[in-house]
Amino acid sequence: MDADRRLVDAALRRLLPPRGSVPVTVRRAMVYSLFPGGKRLRPILAVQACRVVGGRPEEVLPAAAAIEMIHTYSLVHDDLPALDNDDLRRGRASSHRIFGEAMAILAGDALLTHAFEILSGHPATARQANRRLRAIAVLAGAAGVQGMIAGQVMDLEAEGRPFTYAKLQRIHRGKTGALISAALQIGGILGGGDETQVRALRSYGDGIGLAFQVVDDILDQEGSPEGLGKSIGKDRRDRKATFPALLGVPASRRRAARAAARAVAALRSFGRRGTPLTELARFIVERGH
Amino acid sequence: MDADRRLVDAALRRLLPPRGSVPVTVRRAMVYSLFPGGKRLRPILAVQACRVVGGRPEEVLPAAAAIEMIHTYSLVHDDLPALDNDDLRRGRASSHRIFGEAMAILAGDALLTHAFEILSGHPATARQANRRLRAIAVLAGAAGVQGMIAGQVMDLEAEGRPFTYAKLQRIHRGKTGALISAALQIGGILGGGDETQVRALRSYGDGIGLAFQVVDDILDQEGSPEGLGKSIGKDRRDRKATFPALLGVPASRRRAARAAARAVAALRSFGRRGTPLTELARFIVERGH
Repeated sequence: MDADRRLVDAALRRLLPPRGSVPVTVRRAMVYSLFPGGKRLRPILAVQACRVVGGRPEEVLPAAAAIEMIHTYSLVHDDLPALDNDDLRRGRASSHRIFGEAMAILAGDALLTHAFEILSGHPATARQANRRLRAIAVLAGAAGVQGMIAGQVMDLEAEGRPFTYAKLQRIHRGKTGALISAALQIGGILGGGDETQVRALRSYGDGIGLAFQVVDDILDQEGSPEGLGKSIGKDRRDRKATFPALLGVPASRRRAARAAARAVAALRSFGRRGTPLTELARFIVERGH
Repeated sequence: MDADRRLVDAALRRLLPPRGSVPVTVRRAMVYSLFPGGKRLRPILAVQACRVVGGRPEEVLPAAAAIEMIHTYSLVHDDLPALDNDDLRRGRASSHRIFGEAMAILAGDALLTHAFEILSGHPATARQANRRLRAIAVLAGAAGVQGMIAGQVMDLEAEGRPFTYAKLQRIHRGKTGALISAALQIGGILGGGDETQVRALRSYGDGIGLAFQVVDDILDQEGSPEGLGKSIGKDRRDRKATFPALLGVPASRRRAARAAARAVAALRSFGRRGTPLTELARFIVERGH
């Protein structure tokens, strides 16, 4: 995973808009939020998914970088005063605290747009063009108003209101699950996987997406700001809908484990090749302990 | 042009995310900013460009709708309190005044993302896939950090500072010209135009883009809020860089006319087919009188 992380970081640097071609401030704000970055979970999943179907990492690295840019844009906009109003992100001041609100809005817009520029750029063979178009469709769908934006809207509207498990799952499916699942599908598509393989990767993504979010909620309630790199207990202060608030911590842990087990089961047809993704699922659940 | 406007409006309605598939509020905010909308200049240009190269409007209408969504997203974000802080847009309260800042940010993000969802959606033949990928690249480039976002950043940073004609042109090239030129290129690409034709459409777009912005600046200084549908004289109050502030109104008018003439000259190779675009260039300049 460390090797993949380095591949992803190198791709991110390579695919930034060239210095001198864009206003200095907005590029600086993009770089500030992209580096050093977090776990790079989503792009690493895309690279792993590409390998699982027999593709080479080069085929997916631009898309992996694009996925991380979309993830980063969503954090920058979510942290804004009008939204979650969070001053801390990944252990540092959030973008709008450093660059001001206007620049944070624009840097987020820039990261989102640049992701699609990367995915559509470079000449492609006819087969590659078709795969890339499918990858763009999956990514836009996950980022859009039926995915991440839906999750954020439902989250805002649910604040301080009673919520059910089904509602909570829908919120998290949008906020976190959609992009994780998209990363896996995109890795499968660009690696040349067939429909069945891409579907299996999607199921795996749905499982670990849920597990990941449940664990994140537990960490927010129990973790330390050093380990997590963001304000702790903020969900509770904002009366956000979380899994531990609804189910308690032990039952939340069981749900995460079950979701991860479902994810791993979806990998069966890949045989040995699925091992790294199986381990990743385990890693996600154990992060919560 | 009225007929094309109706085609564009119908495409916009058809291509919105289906009701029930997305949270109600964010869809309402998207619809509020899209309808009744403005002149629909950019999507109409895309349709016209498609015709000029011999394509059928159906081939470009989804892209035309996507272009209008990107234009609309940029207005919604630009009007935000942290950016231009404008309460009036197209004669009505701007999005954040109606839906609040959080929802306006998210609705803008949603419009931007949805544009790429539209462009990448629907199965395509290999040839169509390649054209669509090129169209996405042109659109993302125009919307991105070397285009519209660059323009907005430079504009923010120029506020209240001395500026030159070259600087002003760069700002407007980003804020307005890039998307107008992209609309024409995209119409040419999706209509099946060759490289030379797409380049000619781009030159035409560069010319009318500049003419359009110069005229817009004149109208902001001289027009009435009823006719223009936005706060008048706001540029001056904000000490924004404008052409009349730099050159005076008569010289600005001459620049607009010259830019439009350059645009029309680029259409020469299209012969009679170029007539509607020629008339459009004239219409843009005359708007300022």
